[in-house]
Amino acid sequence: MTDLWQNAMDHAVALARKAGSVSASVCLCLFFFIGEESVAAGEPCVLTDNPTWIVDPVDGTTNFVHGHSFLSCFSQLEFGVVYSCIEDKMYTARKGKGAFCNGQILNVSDQKEISQSIIATEFGSNRDTEVVDKIFSSMRKILCLPIHGIRGVGTAATNMCLVASGCVEAYYEIGIHCWDIAAGAIIVTEAGGVLMDVDGGPLDLMSRRVVAANNKIIAERIVKEIDAFTPLRDDASTETED
Amino acid sequence: MTDLWQNAMDHAVALARKAGSVSASVCLCLFFFIGEESVAAGEPCVLTDNPTWIVDPVDGTTNFVHGHSFLSCFSQLEFGVVYSCIEDKMYTARKGKGAFCNGQILNVSDQKEISQSIIATEFGSNRDTEVVDKIFSSMRKILCLPIHGIRGVGTAATNMCLVASGCVEAYYEIGIHCWDIAAGAIIVTEAGGVLMDVDGGPLDLMSRRVVAANNKIIAERIVKEIDAFTPLRDDASTETED
Repeated sequence: MTDLWQNAMDHAVALARKAGSVSASVCLCLFFFIGEESVAAGEPCVLTDNPTWIVDPVDGTTNFVHGHSFLSCFSQLEFGVVYSCIEDKMYTARKGKGAFCNGQILNVSDQKEISQSIIATEFGSNRDTEVVDKIFSSMRKILCLPIHGIRGVGTAATNMCLVASGCVEAYYEIGIHCWDIAAGAIIVTEAGGVLMDVDGGPLDLMSRRVVAANNKIIAERIVKEIDAFTPLRDDASTETED
Repeated sequence: MTDLWQNAMDHAVALARKAGSVSASVCLCLFFFIGEESVAAGEPCVLTDNPTWIVDPVDGTTNFVHGHSFLSCFSQLEFGVVYSCIEDKMYTARKGKGAFCNGQILNVSDQKEISQSIIATEFGSNRDTEVVDKIFSSMRKILCLPIHGIRGVGTAATNMCLVASGCVEAYYEIGIHCWDIAAGAIIVTEAGGVLMDVDGGPLDLMSRRVVAANNKIIAERIVKEIDAFTPLRDDASTETED
């Protein structure tokens, strides 16, 4: 199985580098496939024990692709690839083999003081008053812990790579989809970080909720401040909101 | 005078590229000098008609420098240089000669629809309840106009370069200092953008308030939503807050 995963990851890296010029559906012939485009087309979004690609070509219909995130899954995450074409940074991670950016090993920050931490998050695309209330409330409570600052670069995949790189201590968000976070999830854990649900329980890839942090202390501290809510699960719907 | 400015800008580019290994005080022998370090040391922070360098070496005491921003001013801004060493991007602009990133010409976005716009801003470092109230209130009103999204990469200089590059439509903030925005200001205008105060009046470099946008339509639309407040001016104090 080892060579198969390595080959698959090499393939994902090559695809990511050509971002925009190839279609993510190339993967369909190899594995089950989950992605924004397939779900929008009415295909099911359910994780099984079958090896499954979770792919987010971000903007597959144009040549300009902001990022490219791949992941293959066989009960657990096997590998992840995130390509940030604007910065020409290729983030890769394979289970048990570490996380890398352009070949350089990645390590999370060793910060344990929340007051010295930078937290990444996003406002999301939902503008319903109730959701916006909770997003702003959580953000304000975390900012005033106090922390050093809040950042948001616009994509979950890149925010998670910032955690893996030690540029920020943690990232959290509610409302993202499995294809937004799957590749970043293994990159964070292979860089030494932790993943959990926004209620402190184990991460559920289909729940549309994530906390990724450099360590458990920081993750659990921000979990206390998050006003959690429960979006429609990825495996409960065949329609995407964003 | 032309050669002098070109020489000065070339010098600034060279300094910026060596970020961390040179001291910004090199500039003192040539020009009057304003920067976070000089102000903290009790030197006056007043713009005159004398050519003045406004320099922000960000973290001049360590070899790791997040960004490097220079500007020379003779009644008007003459040139600006911002170096983002993480991305290895050198942004430069000279009055009447355009704005560039690593030699490639920069142009602001031509977006006129606020609902299609991405706005950059920051939470700042002030955690006083009244200030945090206004920052969150403005942010929420702008988000719910609605706009496409809010971004914040953590530095005013880089946010302004994102406006100049067309990656975001506008950036606004209250609480920044003249050395945070001076270089970015000329980069934005030379890329075709506009600058104004958060009340819609002309930009006052010492007021610690700024709106930088791709055009007047977007700038004036967000100005309407900003809960403005008035921090202690840069030229009224010899102490820095951050």
